[in-house]
Amino acid sequence: MQQIDLNADLGESYGPWRMGDDAALMRIITSANIACGGHAGDPETMVAAVRMALHNGVAIGAHPGYADRLGFGRRVIPMPPAEAARMAVAQVGALVALARMEGARVAYVKPHGALANLAAADPALAEAMAEALQAAFPDLAVLAISGTRLEQAARARGMRVYSEIFADRGYQANGQLVPRGQPGDLIHDPDEAAERLLGFLASGQMPCVGGGTVALAAQSICVHGDGPSAVAMAAALRDRLTAAGLTLTSFSAA
Amino acid sequence: MQQIDLNADLGESYGPWRMGDDAALMRIITSANIACGGHAGDPETMVAAVRMALHNGVAIGAHPGYADRLGFGRRVIPMPPAEAARMAVAQVGALVALARMEGARVAYVKPHGALANLAAADPALAEAMAEALQAAFPDLAVLAISGTRLEQAARARGMRVYSEIFADRGYQANGQLVPRGQPGDLIHDPDEAAERLLGFLASGQMPCVGGGTVALAAQSICVHGDGPSAVAMAAALRDRLTAAGLTLTSFSAA
Amino acid sequence: MQQIDLNADLGESYGPWRMGDDAALMRIITSANIACGGHAGDPETMVAAVRMALHNGVAIGAHPGYADRLGFGRRVIPMPPAEAARMAVAQVGALVALARMEGARVAYVKPHGALANLAAADPALAEAMAEALQAAFPDLAVLAISGTRLEQAARARGMRVYSEIFADRGYQANGQLVPRGQPGDLIHDPDEAAERLLGFLASGQMPCVGGGTVALAAQSICVHGDGPSAVAMAAALRDRLTAAGLTLTSFSAA
Amino acid sequence: MQQIDLNADLGESYGPWRMGDDAALMRIITSANIACGGHAGDPETMVAAVRMALHNGVAIGAHPGYADRLGFGRRVIPMPPAEAARMAVAQVGALVALARMEGARVAYVKPHGALANLAAADPALAEAMAEALQAAFPDLAVLAISGTRLEQAARARGMRVYSEIFADRGYQANGQLVPRGQPGDLIHDPDEAAERLLGFLASGQMPCVGGGTVALAAQSICVHGDGPSAVAMAAALRDRLTAAGLTLTSFSAA
Repeated sequence: MQQIDLNADLGESYGPWRMGDDAALMRIITSANIACGGHAGDPETMVAAVRMALHNGVAIGAHPGYADRLGFGRRVIPMPPAEAARMAVAQVGALVALARMEGARVAYVKPHGALANLAAADPALAEAMAEALQAAFPDLAVLAISGTRLEQAARARGMRVYSEIFADRGYQANGQLVPRGQPGDLIHDPDEAAERLLGFLASGQMPCVGGGTVALAAQSICVHGDGPSAVAMAAALRDRLTAAGLTLTSFSAA
Repeated sequence: MQQIDLNADLGESYGPWRMGDDAALMRIITSANIACGGHAGDPETMVAAVRMALHNGVAIGAHPGYADRLGFGRRVIPMPPAEAARMAVAQVGALVALARMEGARVAYVKPHGALANLAAADPALAEAMAEALQAAFPDLAVLAISGTRLEQAARARGMRVYSEIFADRGYQANGQLVPRGQPGDLIHDPDEAAERLLGFLASGQMPCVGGGTVALAAQSICVHGDGPSAVAMAAALRDRLTAAGLTLTSFSAA
Repeated sequence: MQQIDLNADLGESYGPWRMGDDAALMRIITSANIACGGHAGDPETMVAAVRMALHNGVAIGAHPGYADRLGFGRRVIPMPPAEAARMAVAQVGALVALARMEGARVAYVKPHGALANLAAADPALAEAMAEALQAAFPDLAVLAISGTRLEQAARARGMRVYSEIFADRGYQANGQLVPRGQPGDLIHDPDEAAERLLGFLASGQMPCVGGGTVALAAQSICVHGDGPSAVAMAAALRDRLTAAGLTLTSFSAA
Repeated sequence: MQQIDLNADLGESYGPWRMGDDAALMRIITSANIACGGHAGDPETMVAAVRMALHNGVAIGAHPGYADRLGFGRRVIPMPPAEAARMAVAQVGALVALARMEGARVAYVKPHGALANLAAADPALAEAMAEALQAAFPDLAVLAISGTRLEQAARARGMRVYSEIFADRGYQANGQLVPRGQPGDLIHDPDEAAERLLGFLASGQMPCVGGGTVALAAQSICVHGDGPSAVAMAAALRDRLTAAGLTLTSFSAA
């Protein structure tokens, strides 16, 4: 019998502003990527998310990003790789401390937004991030997209690395996502999304937009929580996966 | 033979702005209170300060404050005690992680500015700070002013607590500092400051402004680093204390 | 035939975070208090709100507050009165410039949150605010609560001052609001709220929670926009007021 | 008899952090580019700079930059041109209002750092900036480097545009600055700098690093204020220029 993880970004409120329905998502997912006060979040949101994760038995991941709230971490803020890595370490450190205060532990790290995209593509940033995270948090796993520079850099250093696929995104024959705005970029139907994921989990092959399949590896499925339809999609996926006999459990629990 | 610690606030630059002469101070003191990105500091300044501390054999303390750069942590930002404590834990966590990344460890915590003043006087904040810091960082010592609420709360929880006196401030008969702006508030002459400290270290009695002495306990002497005369004062104190046969070493090394 | 103004706080989103339903409110109110980048808002939200106000024929007010996003301007940040006034002038100046860029003008200023509360009660802050706003913006009116220090200071300087009452709050016999959390503090029923306002507009007398009435002056009614029920309340009020033959128009159009 | 302007960046302190010697520079220059709270500055520093400019008869320029204090406005923060222009308008609006509060007026705008560099090279940003600034501040002149896209866009709109040259930088035959780090990039000797400027002011021809000269137009000379030697250089330049019979006066006074 097979098991799989569902992860989602959480704790992305800030001060008086709410984002996403963390309480609903926490009842669906098995791993929570919690914003660390960089692109979103503050000590209050971090502690609230940690408590919800504890209450729901959800694994805790740190979700560092460029310290750029106005841009929500989706803009590349130019800086040397080592500086970006130190920025990430400071954010993860804040979450690690707040989690420990609550009797919880951070199990993994997954970079956010533009920092994740750049670390996926840029070997220098990937290496700086892997080196800094390993030095600061020897026990932390890394959740990365399969085939990225960050995954390679972390594996090369002997870090535990887990890969994710996206529930609601189309794939190309080379294993990359179909860019947003192109045909087949997004999957809106939960049944279709579940069908594809079940097929992939059985075979290791993901259907491609142009036809055919591509071999992928994944220990986690990334779902989204922004908007009511996203939460409904995530809930439907969970139901379909469990109905198919899969056990949902965090990769980090292994 | 007696030993004593010299501590000072450091790492209070921010982005392009410099404050204080950290390099000079690091050659004088034995314990560095490093700003954690709240009232001052950023990941770059934190790492730079940690490296200087390692290089000079100086103990590292976390120096959290209200997250209020414009006010430099000298204004009370109204918030519940537990929220202030979580704010401090997040800041200390960032420094702990960056220090570990550099192969160093944070030995103690000393609150900054308005947060320190309020935690000294307000039992609820003192208790919230002590509880949160102990839960998040079980090994961290606390550096506090003797007789404050924070010192009492930390001691009551079994935390290791060290006390400090001020090299350049006058004392009242009740053990409190002479408020700034009142006669005798500041000591500008390094010889006079050294004389008083040597007397205190020999007797446990500190001269008071109105005459007489007051019994104080201290494992550390706080010096200042803002401005050339402050650094010169600190250097002169160090010379006088070592000339008198005292060993300068961090309280946290014990 | 009588006319009255409906004002509401708007433009309180920030970067990626949304707050309130500005588009819905803009179709209801006649004066919009637009956040100026201090407690909320940024240049993008300010321009978006200005454009909606232009489109709906709604008067534009500047809504400065303590530059404290985490606290949403609801915490008093300690500073001298003149510094608070300069902070407000800088925020209002940003909105004035963005409005002029869009071919609009800012008609009035209404302080937000803790800044409004302190300027209502503290003569020194009220005077500093009135003096600074008059010097920087000679044509700007002030929207204030009747009887406050800010109203008095602005009137004493010959500024145009307009007063507001609250649609959904209970009043005491002394003309002050019933503090939140006490019986009668909030009015939830749109019919009851409309009834009271129509009575007040006809007589100048507002019913008090303990019985009896109090004489108030008001050129504007403040409604709220946070949450679906608040918008529904505002829409119902508008309908009731216009059904009663009142013309809704901004006080600043006079 | 000829006249020329000396301009410098000022008001770049922030909260508790000082940068540059504004008081010394204000006695040397005739036009002050005052930071507007984006890359540096806050309402307190803006008012202080405005007062010093008034006291010294120095023209006031607005110096907007990317709202990125950590990077001091030297990093390009990715955003659409219109968004960058609105960001600049909001900053200039804050300074305009604070200046008017002090009985002063802002005469011109000169973008800072990465925003200036991008507006110099990118036609879309140059056009967005010129359009927004003209709409918001119809009376404001623009101070730009000769030959840049911003200068062209502002001239094409009929805005008053003034050009500047750099006192301490070497020029190439194409009129561009020698990039930092290349031979001849910087001129450290005040006598050499003055000699070149006097020659340029007499002939309109600037010596080039490789030999020969290039024709430039300029109504202002940019000097720097960071560090004691920069202030000394500026003072020496002023002395040399006035000794040669030149009148120092702001271009914006014309």
